[in-house]
Amino acid sequence: MSRSYAIIGTGALGGFYGARLHRAGMNVHFLLHSDHEHVRRHGLRIESKDGDFVLPRVNVYGRAEDIPKCDVVLIALKTTQNHLLPALLPPALKEKGVVLIIQNGLGMEHDVARIVGPHRIVGGLSFLCSNKVGPGHIRHLDYGAVAFAEYSPEEKPRGITERLRAIGGDFERAGIEVELIDDLTLARWRKLVWNIPYSGLSVALNATTDELMKNPMTRELVVKLMREVVAGAAAVGRVIPESFVEKMLGDTDKMPPYRTSMKIDYENRRPMEVESIFGNPLRAAKAADATLPRIEMLYEQLKFLDERNRG
Amino acid sequence: MSRSYAIIGTGALGGFYGARLHRAGMNVHFLLHSDHEHVRRHGLRIESKDGDFVLPRVNVYGRAEDIPKCDVVLIALKTTQNHLLPALLPPALKEKGVVLIIQNGLGMEHDVARIVGPHRIVGGLSFLCSNKVGPGHIRHLDYGAVAFAEYSPEEKPRGITERLRAIGGDFERAGIEVELIDDLTLARWRKLVWNIPYSGLSVALNATTDELMKNPMTRELVVKLMREVVAGAAAVGRVIPESFVEKMLGDTDKMPPYRTSMKIDYENRRPMEVESIFGNPLRAAKAADATLPRIEMLYEQLKFLDERNRG
Repeated sequence: MSRSYAIIGTGALGGFYGARLHRAGMNVHFLLHSDHEHVRRHGLRIESKDGDFVLPRVNVYGRAEDIPKCDVVLIALKTTQNHLLPALLPPALKEKGVVLIIQNGLGMEHDVARIVGPHRIVGGLSFLCSNKVGPGHIRHLDYGAVAFAEYSPEEKPRGITERLRAIGGDFERAGIEVELIDDLTLARWRKLVWNIPYSGLSVALNATTDELMKNPMTRELVVKLMREVVAGAAAVGRVIPESFVEKMLGDTDKMPPYRTSMKIDYENRRPMEVESIFGNPLRAAKAADATLPRIEMLYEQLKFLDERNRG
Repeated sequence: MSRSYAIIGTGALGGFYGARLHRAGMNVHFLLHSDHEHVRRHGLRIESKDGDFVLPRVNVYGRAEDIPKCDVVLIALKTTQNHLLPALLPPALKEKGVVLIIQNGLGMEHDVARIVGPHRIVGGLSFLCSNKVGPGHIRHLDYGAVAFAEYSPEEKPRGITERLRAIGGDFERAGIEVELIDDLTLARWRKLVWNIPYSGLSVALNATTDELMKNPMTRELVVKLMREVVAGAAAVGRVIPESFVEKMLGDTDKMPPYRTSMKIDYENRRPMEVESIFGNPLRAAKAADATLPRIEMLYEQLKFLDERNRG
């Protein structure tokens, strides 16, 4: 029998991967909040560069208690919703089930470990460009690959386990490009090399990526912020080579003008993922005696903007 | 015969001090640009907490060449206009005259020295809260004191000279509180302790001083920026005690909600004084091997915003 998946957060990310797993024959259960009734009646609709499809009937739930216990619970909420996890996770998780955390930032696994224990957790990174454009309606614009790694409470590389291969295999059968990786901490810091400068400055300066790259002052600031992320990673024992910084710059130069998801959250007056993307890396670096002044300043600016935006 | 004054830039600052000097019997000549015809016909109107007054007839000029050569040329332009000085200064200045530079920031004197020589320059600091509210119409809200110091190309303390006392005496006769100081460089860095955090963050975060002080994150950032200014001053051999930082914070806590003049410039799509307030101090600190990462980041953000604002 195929593995069962509970999707906690059926938005641009959870809706996309969940729909692909469902279409590939996996036994998928979607938790929804505001869109619950709409999706129960009309299903999920995916517009995608890989081909549009509609799933007219999917298993949808308005409350976590109603989800059958699953082999894999995919956390696809924004990290700003993670305070809900103590209520949402336990009902949906089989005794030997795995929690797969596909979120942005650093350190979410430590919080989830306090709920389900440290041995049930796989960390995931997603390289996906998609938006929720309406209830149950997701537009997949570009990319889509995932990377999975075992969580280690001591933040040590854990190697590639059987369950990692099994979950990776499911995503591959769903047509998703999968990378299985050894060191979750390194992977999360590498992703921050892009995320910290562009997410932060796109909000602080109300700018798209191309504007930040075109102006020599902000381009220089992007580079300095990236180097501070590299310094933070180094403080926790992870080496990110200079060539990776250059690759991120080059890739962004080639991207079409892009509004980061943090900027979209800000414009829609939703809470921003400031703690997972900025606060947690800063605290991890500080615990390792590294000071990252520019990232710290950006964090302080974003905290101010976030509070005013929602206040 | 009383000393003659040319006022280069008859705005909120030059208009206020020039009108006070004129009313006190000094021989004052105002250079105006857009308001020239209006002020020629209607004079200057000062609304002030110290008492309103109108000067129906003042000496006004639309071109620097028409101003009689004066004993003191007061530069009261925004520093963003200083590229005009090579044309404006020489015609208005007597052979043994003095250029009095009342502007915000650091290093303006070096540029003016290249025009008139290093021995003709007095630096001035103004603690004035006033706005130009219409052509030839100035509203003086609060404060008004000035501090004057001799310029030294080597940035050494120069002591209190006779001409400093003479100019100070004129301002005192005009009812202005005057302090004569020894060390222009120290005075300019001390003023930056307030100016850098509040001018910069008020624009970068679209915030008034009270908002910046109320939020604990931005309050902390203000303190860190102030300490970087203190570090910059230390790098050029100037001691600003911690008690001065605390006084600036306490004074700002007591101020009513305040929009900095840099924020007003930004909102009116005028160029901001980014180079004199941020760029020059950063370059001075760098030349003395000090790195001020937060001020540098604020500078880069402001350069981006300034360029886009006017582009």
